[in-house]
Amino acid sequence: MKIMIVGASGTIGSALADSLGDHQVIRVGLTRGKYTVDISDPVQIDTLYEKVGPLDAVVMTTGKVTFRSFEALGHGGHELGINNKLLGQINMVHAGLPYLKDNGSFTLTSGILNRHPIHSGASAAMVNGAVDGFVVGASIEMPRGIRINAVSPTVLKASWDKYKDYFEGFTPVSTEAVVAAYLQSITGNTTGQVFTVDNE
Amino acid sequence: MKIMIVGASGTIGSALADSLGDHQVIRVGLTRGKYTVDISDPVQIDTLYEKVGPLDAVVMTTGKVTFRSFEALGHGGHELGINNKLLGQINMVHAGLPYLKDNGSFTLTSGILNRHPIHSGASAAMVNGAVDGFVVGASIEMPRGIRINAVSPTVLKASWDKYKDYFEGFTPVSTEAVVAAYLQSITGNTTGQVFTVDNE
Repeated sequence: MKIMIVGASGTIGSALADSLGDHQVIRVGLTRGKYTVDISDPVQIDTLYEKVGPLDAVVMTTGKVTFRSFEALGHGGHELGINNKLLGQINMVHAGLPYLKDNGSFTLTSGILNRHPIHSGASAAMVNGAVDGFVVGASIEMPRGIRINAVSPTVLKASWDKYKDYFEGFTPVSTEAVVAAYLQSITGNTTGQVFTVDNE
Repeated sequence: MKIMIVGASGTIGSALADSLGDHQVIRVGLTRGKYTVDISDPVQIDTLYEKVGPLDAVVMTTGKVTFRSFEALGHGGHELGINNKLLGQINMVHAGLPYLKDNGSFTLTSGILNRHPIHSGASAAMVNGAVDGFVVGASIEMPRGIRINAVSPTVLKASWDKYKDYFEGFTPVSTEAVVAAYLQSITGNTTGQVFTVDNE
């Protein structure tokens, strides 16, 4: 399979790319590497797809969102999450559909915060719920056997030192456990599914 | 209690307003009546709150979203749902917080489509998931005992003739069953809850 990973320089994206040794993996970063894309820019998304051509799978392990106390967030604080993690991933699907081969798949990334909220995470929870809802809604209209799922992981062990103060009481999971969920989405048969990885 | 219903001219909003006879109900429409607001316009939201003053409960039974086949939707097709049903309701919360009395409540409206998708409903499913996620995330940061919930109803019997072709296989519910969920959110004690009304 020819698999494109957007967010391939991140912890999850790079581990996922490394685990797909039997396949042709196209690693896409934000600024580094042969292929780059800012998913908040529809023009860059079109350019990327034109460059890489037909694909069996598109995986997004990327997306920015504002973490800020609810009071300080205000309604403007949702802009980054909507334009980047939400519409960025959605645009990757709409623009990518013509490039996806029959029976191909999209895998998006949401996250645990709409199930188990944390302080300063209201906008992230909103975006995660939106991504989850989108894959459910879009799944029944995918043409040519194309599937679409989301992976919704909790915080990673690899990020625990950095984020543990925000995630008090949470149990971090291994990168391997999260990668396994992406592999299940890419190589399995389910569609319209949110693969939660809350523990292992 | 002083309860503001935004969307009071709709089927659910008007039935809810009628059922709150023991309370002071402020009915807000889009264009008709003493109080109006276009929730996609933050300036109109601020003006509304200044006009109505302190409130015990704010209920939104309104919100526009684009229904369109996935292929025709494209990424631009999500704009209406994001700016109206999603950010409109979110802005009503951010702007309304200073006007809400201690132990007051916000009740937002999502819908069934992120649980049970229909054709042409991908953007609605996305927005519903976003609203559900938002109330979960925001609930833990509400100050002064303020609560926030969403009601997520299936299609109404009252709208069945109009929408039945989109909702084949669904069982519509009575307006009363949906109103009961709003009453539970307004008068009960739960917060961060999505009250689903899938059947009765």
